[in-house]
Order: sequence, then structure tokens, then C-alpha cells
Amino acid sequence: MAETLAKLEQTIIARRDGDPSSSYVARLFASGRAKIAQKVGEEAVETVIAAMAADRGALVSESADLLFHLGVLLAEQGLGFKDVFAELDRREGVSGIAEKAARKD
Amino acid sequence: MAETLAKLEQTIIARRDGDPSSSYVARLFASGRAKIAQKVGEEAVETVIAAMAADRGALVSESADLLFHLGVLLAEQGLGFKDVFAELDRREGVSGIAEKAARKD
Amino acid sequence: MAETLAKLEQTIIARRDGDPSSSYVARLFASGRAKIAQKVGEEAVETVIAAMAADRGALVSESADLLFHLGVLLAEQGLGFKDVFAELDRREGVSGIAEKAARKD
Amino acid sequence: MAETLAKLEQTIIARRDGDPSSSYVARLFASGRAKIAQKVGEEAVETVIAAMAADRGALVSESADLLFHLGVLLAEQGLGFKDVFAELDRREGVSGIAEKAARKD
Repeated sequence: MAETLAKLEQTIIARRDGDPSSSYVARLFASGRAKIAQKVGEEAVETVIAAMAADRGALVSESADLLFHLGVLLAEQGLGFKDVFAELDRREGVSGIAEKAARKD
Repeated sequence: MAETLAKLEQTIIARRDGDPSSSYVARLFASGRAKIAQKVGEEAVETVIAAMAADRGALVSESADLLFHLGVLLAEQGLGFKDVFAELDRREGVSGIAEKAARKD
Repeated sequence: MAETLAKLEQTIIARRDGDPSSSYVARLFASGRAKIAQKVGEEAVETVIAAMAADRGALVSESADLLFHLGVLLAEQGLGFKDVFAELDRREGVSGIAEKAARKD
Repeated sequence: MAETLAKLEQTIIARRDGDPSSSYVARLFASGRAKIAQKVGEEAVETVIAAMAADRGALVSESADLLFHLGVLLAEQGLGFKDVFAELDRREGVSGIAEKAARKD
């Protein structure tokens, strides 16, 4: 699993300043933060709908789209999945998912 | 990175059938698919808003919430991040992000 | 204001069974409930982003798109804005927005 | 229908600067634009889920929540439903829903 996300991020960074006419990643970065955020929101909506339709294939596919665009959104602000995982590790370290429960409910 | 998601999924599975009064994960599963999907949608909205506010700390925190609830949504249908990563690997294998561009635009 | 929504709904109903090749409304209905729901979710994301960008023109435009697609989503299940307004009137009748506060918080 | 939205907006404006401890509307305005936008996004997610679950009662109730919070989001930027309806009228005037089709597809 580690390699998949690492490769995904390398691809995102490598194509960031590429030619928008040939690279979808370059096109996303060129369109700006609002458009990238919009894509994350849209893919989340599609993930929700796939789950509600109990369409497992679509759920996997839309989740992949969601992770991909989330990676771009993070990169656009100089962040990466490692920052998100450090946050998940920190929560687990402090008090496990119990911390989450306390915080969110 | 691999260990973070692997541990996250182990925690989700381990607490799935736990006591909803003490486990947030057990509570999520007990509330059903629609409520879990709702949480994924809500965390995505918060991720979008954090990005638009250029609040990097919130973006990391909301992205962690989003990944956590996405893991629960996948688990609720017998799926996991490995399925999503297999899909990302498959796309990369076929034709890189170009495949993505062709499909989405 | 009444006439705008009434006309919007008349248009939606009139074009519902029209030719998908020439009518956007007919195309939406032909694509099914999941696609219509997806559009509502996407327009809401765009509304959120327009608000965060403090782009008043885009906020008005995206809100119009949101209302339009919400009208289609309601019509797809034999409902209309009158049902939503009856619900808003009922809440106001019971105890004003205080009822809302009690229910939502 | 006109009266419902007009009354809703009057209530929103009247309570805008009220006491957050007793008014949900005042509390929303006090929490700021990002929180109001978040509520709009969340209610849209719930509307999408109600539609996918074919729960007509929930669809009406969530649509009412969505319209209410959209009214607050508009008011927060000095806008109202009349601006949104003017936009819908303008589109209808120019070329009907065909204009919409041309623009969105």
C-alpha cells in the first residue's frame, strides 16, 4: 500500500508543472485551488452515492478518484499524505480511536 | 505510510462489533450505511472548506477524518484500502494518469 | 418569487418525458435518480466554494443551479417545492426557528 | 409559496443580530461564513442520501433544511432568494432550459 500512495504523489509532483494540454494533473493545478477542491467534493458525492447504491465496484473506483484528487489538493498547499498519516498516528498514539470519539461526538 | 492505514483498518475491523457505548467505530457501524456515508460526505465538505480557507492545519485534520470514515465506509461493504490501491495501481499500469484524463474529461 | 418556482416546476414536468437529445431536463430524468442526486450534490459543492471565495455572482448562479436540480430531484419522486414549503410552514407554525434550533443542535 | 420564502427570509434577517444563546439563526451568523457554508454542504449530503434511500419524508425534510441554510448563506453576503430567482428568470427569458443545457453539458 505504501508504494501506491508514494508513487501517486510522485506522479502528482512530477506532472504538476507539466503541459496542461497533455497532463490531467497539470490541468488541475493550472485550474487553481477552487477547482481542485470542487473535484474532491464531487468525487466524495459520487463515493457516497456508490455506497448508497451498494455498488462495490463503483465504490472502489470513486474512492480511488477521491484519494487521487485529495492528493492533488494536499500537494497544492505543499502538503502530502505523510502529513495526514502523521495526524492519524498522533491520534492513535494519544488515545486510540477513543480520542476521535471524544472529539467528534 | 503503509503501517498507518494498515493499523487504521485493523482498528476499524477490531472495533466493528464492539460496544457502541464505548467505541466510536462500533457506533458508526451500528448506525448503518447511510450514516457512515453521510459522515464521509460531511468530512469531504469540511476538507473543501479548509482548503478554500487556506487553513493547512485544518486541511490535514479534515483529510485524516475523511480517510478514517472512508475506511469505515469501505469496511462496511467488505472492502478495504487495498482494493482502492489495486485500482490506483491498475490505472497507473494501463496508461498512467493519462488514462484518468481520458476517462474524466 | 412564487411565479419563478412555479414556472420552474412546470418546465421540469413538461420536459420530463421529452426528447433527451434536445432537452436537458429529459436527459436528467433519463439518466436516473443517482445521477440527479449527484448533480444536486455537485451544485451544493460549487455553492459552498462560491461562498468561501466570496464571489457573490457565482454564489447566485450556483444557488440557481442548486434550486433547479433540487426541483428535478423532488419531481423524480413525485414531490415538489410545495411539499418543502409546507414543511417550512409547519416548522414556523409550531414554534418558529426555535423548533429548528432544538432539533438540530 | 412566495410567502413561505419571504417569511423565512424575514425571520433570518430579524434574528441575524439576535442573542446566539437563544436563536439558532443568530448562532449561525456568529459562527461565521465557513460554518454556514459547511451546514449547506452537510444538508445537501443528507438530501442526496434521503433521495438514494427513496425516503420521501426525509427528502422533504432535508430539502427544507437545505433551503433554510441556503437562505442564511445568501443573507450572510447581503443576498436573498430574490437574486437567485432573478437569475432563474433571466435564464428562462433568454432561451429556456436550453440555455442551461448548453452551458452545463
